Order: sequence, then structure tokens, then C-alpha cells
Amino acid sequence: MQTSVIHYAVHCNLFGTFRPRPCAFVRRFSNKQQVRRKRINASASLAAAGEKAVKPEHDVPGMTTFLESLKWDKNKLVAVIVQHIDTGEVLMQAFADRAAINETIQTGLATFYSRSRGGRWCKGETSGHFIKVQNIFTDCDRDSIIYLSDPIGPACHTGARTCWFKEVQLVADGAQGQTDSTAVLHEGAHNNGDHAPRTTLQALERTIAQRREALQQPADGSKPSWTARLLGNPELLCKKIREEAGELCQTLEADEGRERAASEMADLLYHSMVLLNLQGVEMEEVLRVLRKRFTQSGIEEKASRPPKLQ
Amino acid sequence: MQTSVIHYAVHCNLFGTFRPRPCAFVRRFSNKQQVRRKRINASASLAAAGEKAVKPEHDVPGMTTFLESLKWDKNKLVAVIVQHIDTGEVLMQAFADRAAINETIQTGLATFYSRSRGGRWCKGETSGHFIKVQNIFTDCDRDSIIYLSDPIGPACHTGARTCWFKEVQLVADGAQGQTDSTAVLHEGAHNNGDHAPRTTLQALERTIAQRREALQQPADGSKPSWTARLLGNPELLCKKIREEAGELCQTLEADEGRERAASEMADLLYHSMVLLNLQGVEMEEVLRVLRKRFTQSGIEEKASRPPKLQ
Repeated sequence: MQTSVIHYAVHCNLFGTFRPRPCAFVRRFSNKQQVRRKRINASASLAAAGEKAVKPEHDVPGMTTFLESLKWDKNKLVAVIVQHIDTGEVLMQAFADRAAINETIQTGLATFYSRSRGGRWCKGETSGHFIKVQNIFTDCDRDSIIYLSDPIGPACHTGARTCWFKEVQLVADGAQGQTDSTAVLHEGAHNNGDHAPRTTLQALERTIAQRREALQQPADGSKPSWTARLLGNPELLCKKIREEAGELCQTLEADEGRERAASEMADLLYHSMVLLNLQGVEMEEVLRVLRKRFTQSGIEEKASRPPKLQ
Repeated sequence: MQTSVIHYAVHCNLFGTFRPRPCAFVRRFSNKQQVRRKRINASASLAAAGEKAVKPEHDVPGMTTFLESLKWDKNKLVAVIVQHIDTGEVLMQAFADRAAINETIQTGLATFYSRSRGGRWCKGETSGHFIKVQNIFTDCDRDSIIYLSDPIGPACHTGARTCWFKEVQLVADGAQGQTDSTAVLHEGAHNNGDHAPRTTLQALERTIAQRREALQQPADGSKPSWTARLLGNPELLCKKIREEAGELCQTLEADEGRERAASEMADLLYHSMVLLNLQGVEMEEVLRVLRKRFTQSGIEEKASRPPKLQ
């Protein structure tokens, strides 16, 4: 079955046969080295997972054939997009040469070729913010790769979660807001992700968080939003969640059809996310719980438990 | 507030001031033209939304300043990643010149520069599979753009939903599966998306769908999975969904902490998704319902209704 094949591929190979290890090529920035060294120590668990030399590509069966199937540009590079496995966020985009792809597959850590520095570069080698690659995909014409990943810390070198924290906002230029427009590059505060691309679930989560923040402000006399009412009344919120779950079930029990089911699920999801906000839980954490549950076998789960004290 | 700014930007400008229109540059493929023409007619709603000429960039206030803030490569292009606004899927990657970005902002339709054909190209102009751009973002060093989008039909020219339908699977080469590995490029059947990058929610949805498919097969005597049991017993499923909703509420009512809340939400989400499968609903549809609800004002909702017959 497909899932078990993927599962096997990821767990037995990307992180089983070849364990994460720091990359051979280490960038040196003398001024910030001490700060960065501290971060590397903080993520020592990765390095401690075992150091294993990366084999030349011809020593890994199938690797050369695979690498030759890719369409390299005139600089012998392919574009690589790093995507967050849980949230779907596009985290960074860079380029990789043959050796970088070979190294990524063997170490399970996202590795690239830096065009500006002219050398191979394992993301996180100086910052400690490694990116664990779970699955690798190529596109239809084989010149672009996706590393579906589980990042350790922020992906952007500025410290932002993703490199895309600048939004192009089009501001209406006219009394009615309908006559013309102005393109404005909004330099978002990159550390709160306010201007990062948000998919629907993330955007909804942010809206709920904003309603919560607004609750701390003095009331301006306007009617509170439904979200604000729910946030301020846990009893009402829990009543609604139970109701919405019941209504979702009823779509099946009373055969109310697929459109109704989608609508009731949207209600349930929204109300549950309001509760998550009150509990200080982000959807990313829920998704991580789900991923761990359905990609981990009982044996792996047992093996991952901390050793018992003697 | 941030959300209302984004909302305003998207609705009043990308799709308000400038309406989607077919692009000026039209690719011509004589052999498939008829089939494609049919598809264009099918999506006539887009073209019917109004045709408005794209202004030169200097006629749009702020556009030249914005375009000059981008870091163009030596071919005067930037990389563009198209991401699905609801699911987070990375749909395609291409390049754009100044004119293509200008056109995208004005028309709201993803437009690129084709390096192979040496010309501007609006995705969908021949296939009808336009990509409606909802938000635009640039990355930290301004040489890469994300079009956060709502696609009409498949994004890949092969008819696949996303261009990344080839998975690199690492197959263990050794009796214990722990001694060595072989890199294999798995040519996935692109039309079912089996080998496309799946974020956690999508992967879970696919697993549930596979359990459903397996139910149609003759039983092999092995113990059915929990998912299979739920799929085969709607009464049990609905009982569980109501229970899980109650347990999620209880994390708030009994102050059981954030970890417990994340875990109960994962349970509720999983069980609800099993119900969605039985109802023939994909999470994408639920997310679309959510997006429409929280980004559309009452006025817009009213304006979007079909006109009444006189």
C-alpha cells in the first residue's frame, strides 16, 4: 500500500540507514560564530544521532541513475523548494547541484549549492536550524525539486519562519476605492509572520488570534464579533462545539448530503480552533500529533521512548 | 487590522478594479486547439467577468517602484512559485519578467515568462485552466515570488493537479533493510496524485481513502484497522465524533492543559475526516467553505449572487 511504502522509505532510509550528521562544508562567519555555536549545541540531538560519511553517488545503488534523470540547468543546478510537511508553508527556495542532492538523500538534511558563495551548503550547519527532509519529489520536467520537510527552527536566514514575509499589497487610489490602484510592497515584521503567505487554515487561525488580541484592548463600543463572544464565553464555546459535532454526525445519520457535510465540518473546525486558541495550541501542533500517530508504527513508537532508568 | 487589509487588497483590487481577462499573448498549438477551445468555453465565466486592457506599468501608481525593488536575474527574471491558497500545495514553478508581474497584479491571473518560447504567457490562456492569484509575496532577498492562488483546474500541463507527481523513493537494499539503500525515481500515476507531496492533512485524508478502497477488496483475514471499522460502522463513527468533541471541550472545562487539547483535537479531526470520506467530501472543499466565509463580507456575498431574472 502506498502509505506504507512512503513510510518505509522515510523512516528506514532517510533517517534509518543514513543518520543526520553535520555537513562537510562549513560556512565561517567569525563575528557571529559564538552565538551560532551555542545554537548548534542546543540542537546537539541531531548531531548525536550519529555521524556517517556521505558516500560518493556511485556507491549508492540507483543514485547515479536518479541524478542523471534530472534536467540540470547550464550551471548544473536544479531549483529546490522547501515545503513544511505539516502546514504546507513554502519555507525557502534555493538551488542544488548533484552532490547536494546526493548528500540530502543520504543525510536526510536539506543541502544546497550556494551560487553566491560557490559551494555546497547544508542548511543549519552554522545556525543549528537544520531542515529534516521527509520526502523528495521532482516536477513534471525534472528541473525542480520539493523537499517536504520538518524544519528545526526558522528557515529564513533573517530568523523568519519562512523567507516570504513581504506582501505586495494593492492599495486603492480613489475615493470609492474602485478607480485605480497602487502597488505597495509591505515590509512585514518578519518575526510575527503577519505578512507571510497563509493558507486558509493558517489565515483563519490568525484571524482568531487577532480577535483574542483585540479583547485585551478597551472596547470601542462596536458590537463584538462572534469569535470574540466565543472567546469570552467558554461555556457558550463548548456548547457550540458539541452542537456542531452533532450536526456533522447528523449529515451522515439523516443523509443530508455532501454540501451540508462540508458546511458542518467547516463550523466544527472553526469552533474547535477558537478553543485551541484559548488553550494556547496552534494547528501546527495538532497536525504534528496526527503525523506522528499515523506514520509511526508501534515498534518505532516504543523505540522512540526515553530509556528507563536502571 | 491585518486581515481586513489583506481582505481589502484582494477583493477590491486583484478582482475588483482589474477584472480577469484573457491574456494578450496566446499560445498556438494547432493539434490540440479544438479540445482546448472547449475548455475555455467551459470557463467562460472568467472571461465574462470583464475584459480590461493591462495598463503599462508606469500608469499604475507604485508599480514601477515595486518592480524596481525586485532583484531580477541576468535574464531579467524572478522565480515564481504558485501555491494553492486552501491546501498549501505547491502547484507549479516558473519565471516572470517585469511585464508578467505587472500583468498578474492587474488581471489577477498568474502570468509568466516562458524561457523556452521566449514570450509572456498567461497560464490557462489555451487550456482554460487559469490560476486566480489571491495574494502576492516576495522573499527576503526579493528574487522569488509566491502567487498564493485559487486554481481553476489542474496546474500542470500534463493534466496533473500539481507538477510534482514524481516521488524519489529510497528502497532498502539488504535483508534487514538497514544496510544500504537504493534511490528510485517513482513515476507516479499523475492523475491520482498518489506521488504528489502531501502535507499531513492531505496524507491522512489519502490514508483514510485507501482504507475505504481496501474495504471493497475481499478480506484477507487480517484484523481490520480502526479506520476500516469506523468506515464500516457509521453508528460507531458518529458516537466517537460526539465523544471526541466532548473530550476536546473537557480539556478547557477541566483545565487539562495544552498538550491534552492538541491530542484531543487530533482525535476529533481524524474521526471527522473519516465521516467526510463517507460523505464524499474532501478537506479542500471544507477549507474553501471556510475561506469564503471569513474573507467575504455580507455586501460582497450579496453582490456575488447570480442576477435575478426580470
